This record gives sequence, C-alpha cells and structure tokens, in this order.
Amino acid sequence: MSFDKKFLSLAGKLKAPTGTKGNYVTYKRIGDMLYLSGYGPIRNGKIPPEYQGQVDAGGGTKYVTPKQAAEAARLTALNLLWIARGAIKTLDHVQEIVSVEGFVASSDSFTGQPAVMDGCSDLLVEIFGIKGKHIRSAIGTNALAFGICVEISMSMKIK
Amino acid sequence: MSFDKKFLSLAGKLKAPTGTKGNYVTYKRIGDMLYLSGYGPIRNGKIPPEYQGQVDAGGGTKYVTPKQAAEAARLTALNLLWIARGAIKTLDHVQEIVSVEGFVASSDSFTGQPAVMDGCSDLLVEIFGIKGKHIRSAIGTNALAFGICVEISMSMKIK
Amino acid sequence: MSFDKKFLSLAGKLKAPTGTKGNYVTYKRIGDMLYLSGYGPIRNGKIPPEYQGQVDAGGGTKYVTPKQAAEAARLTALNLLWIARGAIKTLDHVQEIVSVEGFVASSDSFTGQPAVMDGCSDLLVEIFGIKGKHIRSAIGTNALAFGICVEISMSMKIK
Repeated sequence: MSFDKKFLSLAGKLKAPTGTKGNYVTYKRIGDMLYLSGYGPIRNGKIPPEYQGQVDAGGGTKYVTPKQAAEAARLTALNLLWIARGAIKTLDHVQEIVSVEGFVASSDSFTGQPAVMDGCSDLLVEIFGIKGKHIRSAIGTNALAFGICVEISMSMKIK
Repeated sequence: MSFDKKFLSLAGKLKAPTGTKGNYVTYKRIGDMLYLSGYGPIRNGKIPPEYQGQVDAGGGTKYVTPKQAAEAARLTALNLLWIARGAIKTLDHVQEIVSVEGFVASSDSFTGQPAVMDGCSDLLVEIFGIKGKHIRSAIGTNALAFGICVEISMSMKIK
Repeated sequence: MSFDKKFLSLAGKLKAPTGTKGNYVTYKRIGDMLYLSGYGPIRNGKIPPEYQGQVDAGGGTKYVTPKQAAEAARLTALNLLWIARGAIKTLDHVQEIVSVEGFVASSDSFTGQPAVMDGCSDLLVEIFGIKGKHIRSAIGTNALAFGICVEISMSMKIK
C-alpha cells in the first residue's frame, strides 16, 4: 500500500487540523525539506480530556497514564501528517522522515518519556517503513499549551 | 519602510547584545540559512526583574503575568534580530523567517504559552510582513537560565 | 593532533553507545549535515547514579550538583561524538559543529543551565578548536528520560 493510502486508512475519521490563529504557520518548505510547527493531541478541533495534564507512571485521577500519553503521541503524529499532506498534496511525495522533537508534560518523578514518544515513532514506521525512521528527542516538561500532555514537531525530506 | 528601518525604529534605545562568554557563538551561517542561539529578555545587559520567574495566569508577587511574558518575548525577538543584523549587516537581506522555538518558564498550571510567544511572532510580522511568518513551537518549562521567563531560538533564510 | 586522535584520547575507556531500541535512529545525514538524536550521560551502558535527578545549586542528597551535571554534559558530548564517528568513520571528516541543544533537569529554583552546558561546549572546543564553536540553547526542565540530569542533541557539517 502506498504511504498516502496507508496514512488515510490509519487516520480514519480524524479530520485535517485547521491553520493557526497567530502570526505563524503550520509548515514551512525550504528546498526539499518540510518543517512543521509543534502540534498536539487534538481530535477534530478538541483536546480529549484524557490527553490533558502531566503524565505519571501511576496515572490515577490527577495524571495521564503513559499508555494514554503514547496514544496522544500517535494522534499528534497523525495530525502532523495531515498538515504535511496539506503542504505536499500526497504523502507519497515523502522521501523520508528526518526528525521528531517531542515534549511530554511530566510529573517530577516521571522518566518514561521515550515510551510515550514511541507512540509517534511507531506510527511513522507503520506508514513509511524504514523511510519513517528518524532522529528523535524525547524531553519532559512541567507544563504545555492548553494542558496537552504531548507536543511534537517534525521535519521530513520531500522527493 | 524597509525591514531594516522598521527594525531600527522598533528597537529604539535597545542596544545590540554583546557576544557570549562561553565556548559557543550567537549565530551560525550554513549556506543561505542563519541559525541563532537561544536568547532571553535582556535589556542593555540587564534582565528586567519583571521578566524573571515562572509565568502564571494569576501573576501576583510570585509570578510573571502572561502580559509581561509576552513583552519579554517581544524584547527577546528584538535582541535576536540585533544578533542577526550583526551577522548579515542589514535586515534587508532577510528573505524570510523560518523557525522560532520558544520556552516559557511556567507554573505547573500555566497553559498559555502560545499567547506568550505571540509577543515574538507579532513583532516578526510587524517588521517583515508575510515574510515574517514562521513555524513555531511554544513549550513550557519549570526553570530557565538566570531566571528569565522566556528563551527563544530562531532561524531565517538570507537573500 | 587530529580531531579524531584528540577525541579518542579524551574518550579513553568510554565505549561507543549501542543503537536505539525504538523505531528511530541515532543519526541522520542530509546532504553535508549530520543530525544526532538526543542522548544522555550514559557510561558503557549504564547511567551513573550521580548523574540522575534534578540539578540544584545546593546539591545535597536529593539533587545533582552543577559540577556533576557539567561532567554529565561532557560525558554526553563524548557519547554523541562516538555516534557521529560511527556515521562518518572518523571525526577528521567534521568540518564544524553547528548546533547544540541541551536540556538540564532542574529544581524550580536552579538557573545555572548555561554553566552545566559548558561541560559540553568546552569539550567540543577542546577537540575541534574554533571549528567546535556552535550555536546553543540551554533549557531547564523538571524531568528527563530514565532520570538523566542532561539530554543533548547536536548537528555538525561534514567535509
């Protein structure tokens, strides 16, 4: 299956994100590189409540669980790919994913940021195969915009 | 008005930052791209006290307010443009701003990082118009160097 | 002494890191640029306990001291250079270090991230001289993967 068909089958009912409200843009193309702004686990215009707050290994009423956060990272990756698709029309034009930088809202004692970001990395390889492998940073933080539990930026090389 | 004249009129009495004391540099040019080191809301060598500390929606004696932090982001952007101007002599050589990565020192409950970073983004569009629009990440964190409430790095394409 | 010989003499008994377990890679080459994934202060497969936790100016039983964290940043830089060497065979092929982005696990009151990151920057200049100078961000955060006190990503230009 082509990159684009695979993406569409995995995106399912998830709609493409709308643009930004501020004085910035969702993507920028420089030569054969496409750079994407940081984005979050938004589903059709709303942030699912289970994806809001700091991640903690124990979860509970106060925290997001690592499993939920990994789902949020996967959802974020799908949103980023929708944005990329809007820029280059079809994901079949992707030559390779280059970089992923992920920030995970974390309790002071949470140290499982890489497993959270695997939700994004696994999705990329599911779609693009070996061309989906990328360099990555997985960084914790105490607070993110609108209470999202993960924010990811991405770059890719275009054919 | 040219980019450079517009910048100088907005910079007013703000002086160009001096170089770094460490084993790193304030900018690096690679081909037609200019990359800038992370910088903060420093005014003529000093950090205004109102720009020090974590940002919280409520402000108060302990916290920086979102409005103050947005001013700090604007001041930081002016400093970064001074550094860019030192590298390329005049901002009229800027073809477009490419990326902005901003870190906002935040209380655990602060989720308004994008509005803070608008202080930087709005300044860029005020000077460069549509060429000032950029991709952006707006990330919270608990602590920044010297207590600054915002640290921003930037890249731009040069004519 | 050549870059590569200087590196090997400083690396001493430190072994090259092994690859990643996840769906990402330790480096990516795009044209004449080499980009490295975020890495930490790991020594021959293990994280020294003194490099785990948040950094605080006071240190003590609960915190990493700034001095220890600077050592951790230096160790991290050596690991990153091992990874780069694996990609390009010898560090004599390095034309210049371009960028360093460092995250320092910090107590809420710690503001000495730049001095921590000097542990990395000083090592780069020790090996590459003026070609080792780079743009840099030094960002605090409350939590990092596996409890490491510093995580650094890097890019360099290859001859």
